[in-house]
Amino acid sequence: MHRVAVLGAGSWGTTFAKVLADAGRDVTLWARRESLAAAISDEHVNPDYLPNVVLPSSLSATSDFDEALDGADAVVLAVPSQSLRENLRVFRDALPAGVPVVSLAKGVEIGTGLRMSEVVERVGQIDPARIVVLTGPNLAVEIALGRPTASVLACVDHERAVAVQMACATSYFKPYTITDVIGAEIAGAGKNIIALACGIADGLGLGYNTAASLITRGLHEMTRLGIELGARAETFAGLAGLGDLVATCWSPLSRNRRLGNRLATGVGLEAALAASDGQVAEGLVTCRSVRDLALRHRIDMPITESVYQVCYRHLPPGQMLGYLMDQPHTPEVVA
Amino acid sequence: MHRVAVLGAGSWGTTFAKVLADAGRDVTLWARRESLAAAISDEHVNPDYLPNVVLPSSLSATSDFDEALDGADAVVLAVPSQSLRENLRVFRDALPAGVPVVSLAKGVEIGTGLRMSEVVERVGQIDPARIVVLTGPNLAVEIALGRPTASVLACVDHERAVAVQMACATSYFKPYTITDVIGAEIAGAGKNIIALACGIADGLGLGYNTAASLITRGLHEMTRLGIELGARAETFAGLAGLGDLVATCWSPLSRNRRLGNRLATGVGLEAALAASDGQVAEGLVTCRSVRDLALRHRIDMPITESVYQVCYRHLPPGQMLGYLMDQPHTPEVVA
Repeated sequence: MHRVAVLGAGSWGTTFAKVLADAGRDVTLWARRESLAAAISDEHVNPDYLPNVVLPSSLSATSDFDEALDGADAVVLAVPSQSLRENLRVFRDALPAGVPVVSLAKGVEIGTGLRMSEVVERVGQIDPARIVVLTGPNLAVEIALGRPTASVLACVDHERAVAVQMACATSYFKPYTITDVIGAEIAGAGKNIIALACGIADGLGLGYNTAASLITRGLHEMTRLGIELGARAETFAGLAGLGDLVATCWSPLSRNRRLGNRLATGVGLEAALAASDGQVAEGLVTCRSVRDLALRHRIDMPITESVYQVCYRHLPPGQMLGYLMDQPHTPEVVA
Repeated sequence: MHRVAVLGAGSWGTTFAKVLADAGRDVTLWARRESLAAAISDEHVNPDYLPNVVLPSSLSATSDFDEALDGADAVVLAVPSQSLRENLRVFRDALPAGVPVVSLAKGVEIGTGLRMSEVVERVGQIDPARIVVLTGPNLAVEIALGRPTASVLACVDHERAVAVQMACATSYFKPYTITDVIGAEIAGAGKNIIALACGIADGLGLGYNTAASLITRGLHEMTRLGIELGARAETFAGLAGLGDLVATCWSPLSRNRRLGNRLATGVGLEAALAASDGQVAEGLVTCRSVRDLALRHRIDMPITESVYQVCYRHLPPGQMLGYLMDQPHTPEVVA
């Protein structure tokens, strides 16, 4: 894997391009805007998304995706999840045949309910054995600054995941491999709901026990949904589940946590969103789609339900914990 | 379960006594010192351990353990783990026959390597079916202030755990039940090692990804050890494992985390301990006993090993993450 094309020059795309370059790959980053591509190629900086990070000189950028994809041995899709479909329609015919396609997008597509790798498979007409999902505790800015993290690469074809693992491991970025793509993606989507719940609890002035309880019981209900959909429990207890969830809930920069903080003041969803500067908190969308899935599959998901009630049914945030504490007293794991 | 005796009036014993009283139980707290017992009974406050919390009037205290135990339907052991054995020798003959014995102590006994419930069983001559272990994300002060938390009660006899669950559930304290006592206790001991590792990383100025990676991979190595010792993986993914671990690593008050912070400055163990005001960080003891177990059972535990190396073998703290990142590139779960 010598030449890698990374499509999308946001903070995560640019950061993972840096990881690949630091791992010895020859990387071309595609940026939609020509000025951004020029800044990355000529000044080795992404002024819009990572202004304080010096990018390696082996990393170049272009606003011409044909040029980026030409001769690539691997392609990384780093466009936002809700625009993945339209971007794939544009890229599709230029994608090199047979190479691995690494998906960085998290979430579930609105309307279709498809996981991101399913969108890649269907719209890109790509064999699932070529699609590798990257996830884990991966706050982009920290990785761009070289702070150590583990990560996980999921592919139904284990050898393919290992090939990408060997191509992107560095002294600060340690990827592991799994074959449970469904679990990796459900965990990556679901964590945003739990981060919203933690943000509400935090905004109410509750403590570390409350946050840890929401994380643990939230992961538990996500695990039960995941198993119903064909995932493995160990994926949720690993980097894609627990790891990503802890980093997201802990970081004060998380959009979902900050939206939860604002919701806790009781201003209502519209006012909380108006204060968000137009940044989308994925948990807001995901709590609807995951709740629908839970209802369809008859999986009891009280934390998801409580977040939905606060966001869309006027449950006062101060009553969210009461709703959860009032659930039946049961064994921790109900068979 | 009407009358409950709680033996030990430290912060967790006093807090759980308050939980039981708030749940409608008639609670007698045993304090070693008469002045402390008098303050609790007469002024409804524990000035030494919970000075800012008003205790319920249904909670009384005594320095006479025979009086505390007289007529009790359940006994709670809330003495420190390393003095549990000597206390049990004193209490043993006064313990009412047949009632549940709830153990709040965490850790592994130095020298014998016994889990706390094993000490209760052997020294107290108590049938394991009567021993219930309470664990989970339970920072005492937060619970004493009524902030919501989940918790977990482990007993090989499920009905016994359910009886205690019903006796201590309140609007802010939500206990679940499990039958995996081994997992509950190994997770409770092991978390202190990971909290030390997180404290070192935090002291080195690393970020949320690093902490989340240490928590996830740390829990993973604890799980592998636990399974070898007869525990269940799901216990580690639950409140006893993940829940307790997240609360401990997140809270800036954790003794293990603070010791890790000081170790990160490179002053060495003795100087770091000298700055600890005599408070014991359990992780320091546990990383030795867990490392011994790992070597004996041939379980690979790189995070435990790296903490041991920093504490006892002069590994510079700044090299701890390098040691971990240099581990072989593998699947996330190695069969």
